[in-house]
Amino acid sequence: MAENLKFAVIGGGSWATAIAKMLCVNLNEITWYMRNEDAIEHIKTYHHNPNYLSSVEFDVKKLKLTSDINEAVAYADYIIFAIPSAFLNGELEKLTESLDDKVIFSAIKGIVPETSLIVGEHFNITYNIPFENIGVITGPCHAEEVALERLSYLTIACGDAKKAKIVAKNLSGNYIKTKISDDIIGTEYAAMLKNIYAIAAGIAHGLGYGDNFQSVLMSNGIREMKKFIRKVHKMKRNINDSAYLGDLLVTGYSIFSRNRMFGNMIGKGYTVKSAMMEMSMVAEGYYATKSAYNLNLGYGATTPIIDAVFSILYEGKSAKAVFKKLTEKLD
Amino acid sequence: MAENLKFAVIGGGSWATAIAKMLCVNLNEITWYMRNEDAIEHIKTYHHNPNYLSSVEFDVKKLKLTSDINEAVAYADYIIFAIPSAFLNGELEKLTESLDDKVIFSAIKGIVPETSLIVGEHFNITYNIPFENIGVITGPCHAEEVALERLSYLTIACGDAKKAKIVAKNLSGNYIKTKISDDIIGTEYAAMLKNIYAIAAGIAHGLGYGDNFQSVLMSNGIREMKKFIRKVHKMKRNINDSAYLGDLLVTGYSIFSRNRMFGNMIGKGYTVKSAMMEMSMVAEGYYATKSAYNLNLGYGATTPIIDAVFSILYEGKSAKAVFKKLTEKLD
Repeated sequence: MAENLKFAVIGGGSWATAIAKMLCVNLNEITWYMRNEDAIEHIKTYHHNPNYLSSVEFDVKKLKLTSDINEAVAYADYIIFAIPSAFLNGELEKLTESLDDKVIFSAIKGIVPETSLIVGEHFNITYNIPFENIGVITGPCHAEEVALERLSYLTIACGDAKKAKIVAKNLSGNYIKTKISDDIIGTEYAAMLKNIYAIAAGIAHGLGYGDNFQSVLMSNGIREMKKFIRKVHKMKRNINDSAYLGDLLVTGYSIFSRNRMFGNMIGKGYTVKSAMMEMSMVAEGYYATKSAYNLNLGYGATTPIIDAVFSILYEGKSAKAVFKKLTEKLD
Repeated sequence: MAENLKFAVIGGGSWATAIAKMLCVNLNEITWYMRNEDAIEHIKTYHHNPNYLSSVEFDVKKLKLTSDINEAVAYADYIIFAIPSAFLNGELEKLTESLDDKVIFSAIKGIVPETSLIVGEHFNITYNIPFENIGVITGPCHAEEVALERLSYLTIACGDAKKAKIVAKNLSGNYIKTKISDDIIGTEYAAMLKNIYAIAAGIAHGLGYGDNFQSVLMSNGIREMKKFIRKVHKMKRNINDSAYLGDLLVTGYSIFSRNRMFGNMIGKGYTVKSAMMEMSMVAEGYYATKSAYNLNLGYGATTPIIDAVFSILYEGKSAKAVFKKLTEKLD
């Protein structure tokens, strides 16, 4: 295994901060790009990110912080993207440095709105990165629990198992266990789709459905996810592995999930617009819903939950009426 | 479908009360047996069970209440047992009435301690009831949410589909949806095993593991359950159906689950004995753990979670040390 590979983390949010923390356990130096120059100065002075996971203290000698994405790309052999999918395209447009021969790992759980592609496909199609240089880092993993050093399991998927192992090795630690996978498409779709089911769980909760229904919704959700992913990329996978079912559960049952919170507001009667304004954060699942729905017009998987969320978020249908109908389709 | 079939409910607890409530929506009369004569008098006078789901008001004209189990058995064509499995044998020993030609449905989620059999098998082996006269009523369903009339889904399993349909029809209502199944063995084992995983979830929580680990535990739990049940009774089933995965989730994620609560106390350092005394209620999973572990000595399924819970509950091993080892076996 090649030594002295250089890693860069792209993003200043909670997941990027968690990944930077994990890497610093194993590496003597990483480059960490974030747009926010004040945050960079704060980290340099106070050794923690002022905005996310601020309890995490960094050994700043290990951090090459930069607000220039080209500097990060030029530096790194492995680049881990951990920014909201809605911002990815804008960041990539700043690139003057080439991505050729770089290994790109996505820790983004969503769809690139401009291309309706998952991140791996986006890099493959738009930037000609071959799939053996593309990977996915997926949970189940709330960044907040990484900050608390609570035991968490990550799945690292890559077409090239060697590269998956390198990333896995550099993220592993006392409280991080890693597993590698070759299902780069399936794990990324799962990470994207689970946000839609988390929105559905939130809507149900907002409408007053209880725990019994929530468990039926998750049980139907994982079956629906399996059907959808099988249409996208058929291969042998156990949908009950942590990267699929575990990731669905940690999000669908979390009251801290932005997606669940967004759904909850919709269920309680907020309009989509006002829920988004109120949250002042992007719920990845909002974009994922549209993309998944549109993609599935081609695939034709039976996806009553995705369809229901779509008609509420994009067709202005009443959450109450749509869920009433949905309950007839679940079992 | 034969009309005017007579139903009896055996048990005075929350699940029995919920089932009596459901049946009263569809039937003009049921017989309801419970040991506690004070509770019977209370229901007759105040129209609600004083001890469980006391918000549920009954139309007492529909209730033939009795503290004589033989009266209930003599009355009914369909007998629904909803008492803790630890009390089943003691109740059945009172029988002078024959169970021949009776249809027996179990709403018990556990193992009969005296025989280490699931309830269906116990009736079949000990009372010679043929499997076509034995059925299972399973969730995911907290009785408390039935009281609140929150939408819940039940699975009704019986070797004879007609009988499953009859029970399903009589339990269904505005807030109860039912589905029938022919997997009488698998659904009952799932209902039993899920309590062990709920204990495991409680232990993990008590030890300080977080939501990320909980989702990994449930993801491993459903895979383990699938392997175990396949050894017991191989047939085509989707382990992600509500009766299996849904039931696991509603229990494993519920802070109200007795089994999870019991595990939580163990995780926090209570001894098994003191946790049981403190709770003053039977955690079904305690017995289920022993039975499942012993059964699996014959089956040989790989069940690290059951093994871990067994060694904590029955071999006096340290929860902390056992879970530390368990985390190495999960993925």
